[in-house]
Amino acid sequence: MVPLVECCRPMSDSQHPTVTGFRFGATACGIKPDGQLDLGIILAEDAVSVAGLFTKNRVKAAPVVLSMQRVERGRAQAIVVNSGNANACTGAKGMEDAKVITSIVADELGVADDMVLMASTGVIGQPLPSERIEQALPGLISEARPDRIDDFARAIMTTDRWPKVSSIKFPIGFEKEVTVLGVAKGAGMIHPDLATTLAFVLTDAPMHSSFLQRALSTAVDRTFNRLTVDGCTSTNDTIIAMSSSAVDSEPLRGSDRDARRFIDALVDVLGELGKRIVQDGEGARHVIQLEVVGAPSEDAALKVAEQIGRSMLVKTAIWGRDPNWGRMMAAAGMAGVAFDPDKVEIKFGKVTVVRDGVAVGREAEDEARRVMAEPSYRVQIKLGPGKAKATYLFCDIGEEYLRINASYRS
Amino acid sequence: MVPLVECCRPMSDSQHPTVTGFRFGATACGIKPDGQLDLGIILAEDAVSVAGLFTKNRVKAAPVVLSMQRVERGRAQAIVVNSGNANACTGAKGMEDAKVITSIVADELGVADDMVLMASTGVIGQPLPSERIEQALPGLISEARPDRIDDFARAIMTTDRWPKVSSIKFPIGFEKEVTVLGVAKGAGMIHPDLATTLAFVLTDAPMHSSFLQRALSTAVDRTFNRLTVDGCTSTNDTIIAMSSSAVDSEPLRGSDRDARRFIDALVDVLGELGKRIVQDGEGARHVIQLEVVGAPSEDAALKVAEQIGRSMLVKTAIWGRDPNWGRMMAAAGMAGVAFDPDKVEIKFGKVTVVRDGVAVGREAEDEARRVMAEPSYRVQIKLGPGKAKATYLFCDIGEEYLRINASYRS
Repeated sequence: MVPLVECCRPMSDSQHPTVTGFRFGATACGIKPDGQLDLGIILAEDAVSVAGLFTKNRVKAAPVVLSMQRVERGRAQAIVVNSGNANACTGAKGMEDAKVITSIVADELGVADDMVLMASTGVIGQPLPSERIEQALPGLISEARPDRIDDFARAIMTTDRWPKVSSIKFPIGFEKEVTVLGVAKGAGMIHPDLATTLAFVLTDAPMHSSFLQRALSTAVDRTFNRLTVDGCTSTNDTIIAMSSSAVDSEPLRGSDRDARRFIDALVDVLGELGKRIVQDGEGARHVIQLEVVGAPSEDAALKVAEQIGRSMLVKTAIWGRDPNWGRMMAAAGMAGVAFDPDKVEIKFGKVTVVRDGVAVGREAEDEARRVMAEPSYRVQIKLGPGKAKATYLFCDIGEEYLRINASYRS
Repeated sequence: MVPLVECCRPMSDSQHPTVTGFRFGATACGIKPDGQLDLGIILAEDAVSVAGLFTKNRVKAAPVVLSMQRVERGRAQAIVVNSGNANACTGAKGMEDAKVITSIVADELGVADDMVLMASTGVIGQPLPSERIEQALPGLISEARPDRIDDFARAIMTTDRWPKVSSIKFPIGFEKEVTVLGVAKGAGMIHPDLATTLAFVLTDAPMHSSFLQRALSTAVDRTFNRLTVDGCTSTNDTIIAMSSSAVDSEPLRGSDRDARRFIDALVDVLGELGKRIVQDGEGARHVIQLEVVGAPSEDAALKVAEQIGRSMLVKTAIWGRDPNWGRMMAAAGMAGVAFDPDKVEIKFGKVTVVRDGVAVGREAEDEARRVMAEPSYRVQIKLGPGKAKATYLFCDIGEEYLRINASYRS
C-alpha cells in the first residue's frame, strides 16, 4: 500500500545511493528551447536482466513500440531517454529516428542494436529533432557516471516542478545488501493503467528477467495503477526495470523471503515515486489519500475509488476546500458497484461528515474545512458492512492545470 | 443527429407555443437566497400519458426514486420541480418531504397522490426547506398558465446562464397539427447516460404511455446520450415526457409515418435542448461537434468520440485554442477500439491537420487556430476505411468552470 503522504514537498533527492553496474548521463541537446537538460541515458556495464510495462493506449509512440519488442528478449544494456518531444504520431520517420538513435548508442557501446531501449516524453505529433540527439550521444555516454541519477531525473522532466528519485537498501541472502533505485517523471497525463509517463528502476539484486517482470507487474499494480492526476493515459507511458545482478547471491525466484522482500522494496520505491507524481500533478494544491472501506470486494472498492479520484466535480471541490461530500456520493454511485447509499460513512481526516448516508451537520463540515487546508490528507468512504478495501491517490485540479495545458505547446 | 451548432448564444426563448392541455407555474419560495424563481410546476388538465428516463447513478435523490415508481403506471397529472436543493443524500426525511409535497399538490388538484411526480436539482446533502415549498404550492398551482413555460424554465435553473426551451409543430393524421415543447436545465454534471439534470417534454399528440416511453428512449439515445460537459453524472438526472393526447387523431403507435415524425420531432427538440446545455457548460467558450467517421461500427465510433469529449487534456487545449491533435489521438487510443493510428485523418472545420497519422504541417495548424477562435466548430476524426460514424457534442473547460465548482456551495 502507498503510505500516507506527509507533506506536499518531496524529500531531498540528493542522498540517493549508486547501484553497482549502472551509470547515468544527462545533457542539453537542444530539444527544449531554453538549454535545459533534455537527453538522458542509463547504461549497464553488461547485458542485464530487463522487464517492462508499457502504455495500453492503442496509439503508441515509436520508442514504445521499439522498446516493447526489445524488452521481450529479457536482456538489455542501455536506455536512452529524451524529453521535450514524445516522438508519437510521427509515422515512419518516428520509428526510423528511434532505430537510428538506439543504433548509434549500440555502436558506441559495441553491442547489438536490440540491446538498447528508448523512451521519449513531451509534445505529440512533431518530428523528433533527431540530428541534435545523434550528435549529443557520444558525449552523453562518455560522461555517464554512477552518481548522476539526479541529472538524469532532471533530463526526463517535462512540466514536472521537481525531479523524482527514490531508493531503498535491504539485506538478502548471507549478509548481502542490495539496492533498488527508481526515477520517474510525471505531471499531467497521469492515470492508470500506467500512472506515469516514464519510470525506471535499477537494482543490483540477482535475478532472471522472468522474475523481474513478475515483480514489476505486481508492484505497479499496487502503486502506479492506483493513482490519478487527470484521468488521461499517454501514448508514451513506460516503466522499465533492470537488474545488474551484481550482488553475488542466489537469484531471486518464486516467493521465498528474499523474493518477497524485493517485491516489497519495489512497492516502496514505486509507491514513493507515485506519491511524488501526484504531489506534482499540474497545479495540484492537495494530495488526497482516498480509502474506500466496507466494500464487497477489493475490485469494487477500487472501482469506487477510481470514480471519485477521476471526478472533475470532486477535484474542483478539493481545490476550493469545500467538503462537498455529495459529489463523492454521486461519483461513487457511478462505479457500477452495489451499495446502500443510506449506509455510507465519509470522513475527512478524523472528522466524520456523513453517517448513515446523511450529513452529520454544519459543525462537522467546518472541522472538515480545517482538514482540507492541509496539503495532503486522508478521505475515508465506508460503503457498508463489507470487509474489502482499497487505497487510491489523487490530487485536485485548479487554475494552474488549465494554464499549463491550454498553453503547453505554445 | 444533432445539427451543427451555429453560434454560442441560444435563440430567443420568448416565441414558444402553448401545448393544449398543459399549464406551467413558477414562483420564488425562498430555497435560493436571493429571491430568484426556484419552484415550478407542470399541470395537465387530466391524467395523461407519461414516460420517464432517470439517472443510472446508484445514489438516487428521493424525488427520483418516487417519480421512477410513479411513472411506471404510465399516467400522471403534475410534475413539481424545485431548484436550489437536490434533495439527494437526505435519508428518510428526504423521501418524506417529497411525499408530503406531492401529496399537497394532489390534494389541491383532487387526484391520487401517485398522479404527481417530483424532480429536484441543486446542492446535494442538505435537507429540503420543505415548509417553504409547501406554503408556496397553492399559489403556484392557482397562478399556472399555458403560456408560462419561460418562467418555468427559469425556476428550474441552477448554475445555468440562460433558460432552455425548444419546440416544434408538425402535421399528423388528417390535417391535424401537433406540438412538442421541451424545457431543460443543464450546466455542470452533464454526461451520458442522461445528459442533463432535468428535462421535460410536453405534447398534445395522441398516444399511449408505452409508445411515449419507446419514443423518448429512442430520442434520448440519439441526443442527450451523445454529449458531455464534464463527464459527471448526477444523482438527480430526470427526463419526463407527458402527452395530453388533446389532438383528436389516431394514437401514434408502431413505426408508421406519424410515429416516425413524432420521434423525429422529439429528436429535434431534445437535440436543440442538448445543444444549449453544452453551450451553457459551466464556463464553456467553445462547443465542438465531434464527428468520428471511418469506424468499424457505430458503437466503436461513439466510444472514440466519448473518450475525446471527456479528455481533460483535449478540453483544455480547445479552451486554449491549440490544435493539439496529438491529445485527440491519445484519447482515441484509450477507447478500446481497434484502429490503425497511421491511417487517421483529423480536420478542424475544413482544415486537415493530420493525414495518415502525421501532421500536415505548421501552416495547417495556423489555419486550424483560426477555426478554433469560433464559438462553435466541427472536428472530424477519420479512423480508417470503416463505414460507421457517430456525432458527439462537447465543450471546453476553462477557469470559470473551476471558479463555479470550487465555490458553488459557499
